[in-house]
Amino acid sequence: MSVQFTPEEMNAYLEEVFPQIKGVYVVEELTGKGCVMRLNVTERQLRPGGTVSGPAMFGLADVSAYAATMGQIGREAMTVTTNASFDFMRKPKAGRDMIARATLLKLGKTLSVTDILLYSEGEPDPVARSTMTYAIPPKK
Amino acid sequence: MSVQFTPEEMNAYLEEVFPQIKGVYVVEELTGKGCVMRLNVTERQLRPGGTVSGPAMFGLADVSAYAATMGQIGREAMTVTTNASFDFMRKPKAGRDMIARATLLKLGKTLSVTDILLYSEGEPDPVARSTMTYAIPPKK
Amino acid sequence: MSVQFTPEEMNAYLEEVFPQIKGVYVVEELTGKGCVMRLNVTERQLRPGGTVSGPAMFGLADVSAYAATMGQIGREAMTVTTNASFDFMRKPKAGRDMIARATLLKLGKTLSVTDILLYSEGEPDPVARSTMTYAIPPKK
Amino acid sequence: MSVQFTPEEMNAYLEEVFPQIKGVYVVEELTGKGCVMRLNVTERQLRPGGTVSGPAMFGLADVSAYAATMGQIGREAMTVTTNASFDFMRKPKAGRDMIARATLLKLGKTLSVTDILLYSEGEPDPVARSTMTYAIPPKK
Repeated sequence: MSVQFTPEEMNAYLEEVFPQIKGVYVVEELTGKGCVMRLNVTERQLRPGGTVSGPAMFGLADVSAYAATMGQIGREAMTVTTNASFDFMRKPKAGRDMIARATLLKLGKTLSVTDILLYSEGEPDPVARSTMTYAIPPKK
Repeated sequence: MSVQFTPEEMNAYLEEVFPQIKGVYVVEELTGKGCVMRLNVTERQLRPGGTVSGPAMFGLADVSAYAATMGQIGREAMTVTTNASFDFMRKPKAGRDMIARATLLKLGKTLSVTDILLYSEGEPDPVARSTMTYAIPPKK
Repeated sequence: MSVQFTPEEMNAYLEEVFPQIKGVYVVEELTGKGCVMRLNVTERQLRPGGTVSGPAMFGLADVSAYAATMGQIGREAMTVTTNASFDFMRKPKAGRDMIARATLLKLGKTLSVTDILLYSEGEPDPVARSTMTYAIPPKK
Repeated sequence: MSVQFTPEEMNAYLEEVFPQIKGVYVVEELTGKGCVMRLNVTERQLRPGGTVSGPAMFGLADVSAYAATMGQIGREAMTVTTNASFDFMRKPKAGRDMIARATLLKLGKTLSVTDILLYSEGEPDPVARSTMTYAIPPKK
């Protein structure tokens, strides 16, 4: 599949539809198969002990699946998450950014399914895995 | 099962282990079967249009399952989430608090499983459902 | 919501669309809120030790969610499962039938979401919980 | 990670602990990272129209995760599935075997997590994805 945005264009679009995430979730690569997204970790995403919080990881997985899907179908801000699953497997490294590697497994007419592996930057083993399903509104 | 905390004691304990959530996630009821928790919605939890964000709902489900589990086993701050699933079914009502109704389905030696229904306050139909699994460290 | 089938009519319909499950999965109650379904356990559903197999529990959860959904929307044999989640919490009792209690949480235009608790007959605590999402084809 | 079984040894072991699956689920490759397993599709696994049933896909995912885990830890027949998630994305091709590609994402002391992609043999796009969690009993 071909992609309709450069990473810069996708970041500008994400900032437009989700202004509160500006500078937090950043697309680094975007292809027809998915994307790589960085979570710039600040105090706000941390739990005591310096690990990244569950909600911050949820946000990273969710926004990376959104970018992977929008990269294919273009601007459809009404697209909504219908299902999410997570396995938390390792403790995130304190004080590291997180990297999401999102793979679009299906892009249908009404649903997209994206698999995401979440890593503490520089580590070989994933902290968590997630699958996100987005519902795509019918074309008018 | 009997419960080891009053709601006030549980809120004090949650504030101790997760200081950043003070005043945001509040236990309103706590029994041997689970808990009712309120998400006091502020600007920080909102998306454009006034709906509650996915990460905020993740946090609400996660903390309510933690409180339901801790209510039974007592203070075990090292308990960690290992699995989470979500179905997002309806749009949250703008500007309303969210209420989680958490039911402890299993409390084993090494795992707890909690089902959670999330509501916009005052609405009959749930916004989302979630299941959370916590790993419980072995007794020394 | 009102229901379009009696249990007997639903069993006849299930047998028509899934002839291989005749006598295995049987609707005992059917209302606008969901259904109660029995798995008549025979050798074929058992694992060594006499416990019900995972695939048989999958089938029970899946068919009960199908019946709960069809009970509302009427005959739509093309409806397909898109997502399933399971937590297996207790060992099924040897040699007992299983009972599914399925609750329809959402019936939208394109998706239904059903929560299911699975019990060994006569036991108070569930063996497993499941959520099933069905995609409903658009009306022509 | 190193693997403790050849594919032949694993098939003999699976047949010993799950005699009813003999010849149905067959390990074709087994490494420290996971396994490839074939579902030999016969009438018993089919639904009307010739597609593979959901319970048969559940079994394939479950047994492949079991083989991927056992390949590492050796004979631990008491290991049990605690969580499973599925996304069904495409209709299986009629009359084709199914191939599971299972990747062990985590092997901890008490839990293993395996990701599985399920294919109709010869097709490039997966029919379904699954994640399976196994609980591993403590060493005595």
